[in-house]
Amino acid sequence: MTRFGKHTNISLEDLIYDAYQHMIKNSSEHGFKLDIDAVFVGSMNVDEFTGEGNLGSVVVDKLDLVPLPAVRVETASATGSGVFQTAALGVSSGIYNNVLIIACEKMTDLPTSRTTSILAKVLSPLERAHGATMPALSALVTRRYMKDHNLSLEDLAKVAVKSHYNGSLNPFAHFQKEVSLETIMESRIIASPLRIYDCSPISDGAAALVLTSRKTDVKVTGIGQGTDHLSLQTRSSLTSFGATRTAAKKAFEMAGRSPPEIDIAEVHDAFTPFEIIGTEDLGFFDAGEGGQAVIDGRTDLNGDIPINTSGGHKARGHPVGASGLAQVIEIVWQLRGECEKRQVDNVKIGLTQNIGGFASNNFVNILEVFQ
Amino acid sequence: MTRFGKHTNISLEDLIYDAYQHMIKNSSEHGFKLDIDAVFVGSMNVDEFTGEGNLGSVVVDKLDLVPLPAVRVETASATGSGVFQTAALGVSSGIYNNVLIIACEKMTDLPTSRTTSILAKVLSPLERAHGATMPALSALVTRRYMKDHNLSLEDLAKVAVKSHYNGSLNPFAHFQKEVSLETIMESRIIASPLRIYDCSPISDGAAALVLTSRKTDVKVTGIGQGTDHLSLQTRSSLTSFGATRTAAKKAFEMAGRSPPEIDIAEVHDAFTPFEIIGTEDLGFFDAGEGGQAVIDGRTDLNGDIPINTSGGHKARGHPVGASGLAQVIEIVWQLRGECEKRQVDNVKIGLTQNIGGFASNNFVNILEVFQ
Repeated sequence: MTRFGKHTNISLEDLIYDAYQHMIKNSSEHGFKLDIDAVFVGSMNVDEFTGEGNLGSVVVDKLDLVPLPAVRVETASATGSGVFQTAALGVSSGIYNNVLIIACEKMTDLPTSRTTSILAKVLSPLERAHGATMPALSALVTRRYMKDHNLSLEDLAKVAVKSHYNGSLNPFAHFQKEVSLETIMESRIIASPLRIYDCSPISDGAAALVLTSRKTDVKVTGIGQGTDHLSLQTRSSLTSFGATRTAAKKAFEMAGRSPPEIDIAEVHDAFTPFEIIGTEDLGFFDAGEGGQAVIDGRTDLNGDIPINTSGGHKARGHPVGASGLAQVIEIVWQLRGECEKRQVDNVKIGLTQNIGGFASNNFVNILEVFQ
Repeated sequence: MTRFGKHTNISLEDLIYDAYQHMIKNSSEHGFKLDIDAVFVGSMNVDEFTGEGNLGSVVVDKLDLVPLPAVRVETASATGSGVFQTAALGVSSGIYNNVLIIACEKMTDLPTSRTTSILAKVLSPLERAHGATMPALSALVTRRYMKDHNLSLEDLAKVAVKSHYNGSLNPFAHFQKEVSLETIMESRIIASPLRIYDCSPISDGAAALVLTSRKTDVKVTGIGQGTDHLSLQTRSSLTSFGATRTAAKKAFEMAGRSPPEIDIAEVHDAFTPFEIIGTEDLGFFDAGEGGQAVIDGRTDLNGDIPINTSGGHKARGHPVGASGLAQVIEIVWQLRGECEKRQVDNVKIGLTQNIGGFASNNFVNILEVFQ
């Protein structure tokens, strides 16, 4: 993958090219010769962010892969996972043997207000009509979680402290500096109680990965997807996301695994409370216990279930269509023991969880060392 | 499917709902009980045409299919086929048994100039920068074809006469009136030599179909996809589309069929010359013979290879993301003998060909009666 961040003078096409070259080099170093037979491209809002309307064709043309098949897959902010799981169907079908997945987004070319309004289109039209934005609804969920489970703002800030620490160890992260609790607690409010450090940034970036039917050192053992109603008002809970629970159940069943067996996880933290809710929905902690787990350091790099070793969306960055695939790549690197300063010991099974829209279309993937 | 056309007072969501209800009723009449386990949604430019940014979730919510998985697939103007073939991977993988495919577009809410400029984003940035539009480049291809193969404007108009005649027999068509050769020859010029009757309309519409692993009366025997360079200047030919030839080769190989075995075909006729080029690229006629075949009536309803019995994009209409699936639906109806006035006798094998962008991402599907 490319480093995620603000790439002012690099086009989306060039980010894709860079990620692809990095993948080729990385694969080659592991002794894999690629013979790609199809391309799956993920981007959430390429049309509006960059003005390109034919991304599948753009990618095969740019990467000199004409006349290979290419499709674009989109599942809002879970697009990186949507394209990953759809590509997995291609390999599982036996129709394709080696599929290239490109997941990407170029968000920083537009003014932030415009970008935010494009992203808000994933919300229920009912709620959008009243001016709801992603941060506003996230703030509402956060208030409810704080009330139900006695979470303090300081507890929440500790998620960001951890993410930024992990990001400081990741050369691919958007933000690579530690941030103190005090800085976070004093940062400006975006949607009360959420401060700027509770929100993932607007980033550019691209990620590339090949899924193969051949035996390699890493195996995808479980994939799962679930949806939920768009409107929060029609959901059974504000502080637990049904789409994650559905996706997790399927992925765990397919893999034949259970939450305690997972060594590390990348959890969708577009907002810091989402990481806490995610770890509960995934079954790592009981409902209401996710905050305490952060405080106790259980999700730290040396904790019993390290979460977002990459820095997460918060620090690694969140180019919306690319993030889900970056999560998978972090797990692959951890399973291979290639994460250097942020490497977790003895990682055999990893999981990613990715949220689409306001948790209306969520994904879980389980990857394992394959020996 | 819904009737294609200008649906001023019906939202995209309601068009999708109508198509789904029509599909349920139709399936029920054929004795199929549906137990859908995943949803694949196709739309080319839903964000820009309607302002919705999360179509997969919108569809499962609207159709009361939460928490089923839903992904959106996009391959420019071949999106209806892109989503069909991607859904086919899902069934072939064994992970899903019954996948619902929704293909849709709501184009008429915007001014035509805005719609046309959105559609032009599929072109090569190089050519777009010089003001190229779909009709302009199509006109260029047409001029070259006319020069190379002695096609006259009157010959071209006969494609539209045939399409509008077929459309007059199709209750789902945008245009259901016959149009005379004189009317076409005197209609206004869009991009010389193409007149308004050489161009498919801007339409609204939705289509729904379930692919199942169970044995039914119709079987998908071949699918194929191919891509080509975006810029026309980098292609080996202006009058033959490599992406169609690649897609056709794969689909024919998978089906174990050859062009003479095909009874009917739906061929992508966004512009009348595309139908002629398509019938040549598919191997129905030799290069340069497609125009004469139209003149000789070989592609008429009672010809030896009826083309676009639905009326084609020209008369059935072209809601860009939906058209490819509408082609498949027409073939299913023809295979079942349900097309009434436009029914072709003894249809056992049908084919669809769908163009994405300016023939940069094309698809071919082969469907057969399964006994």
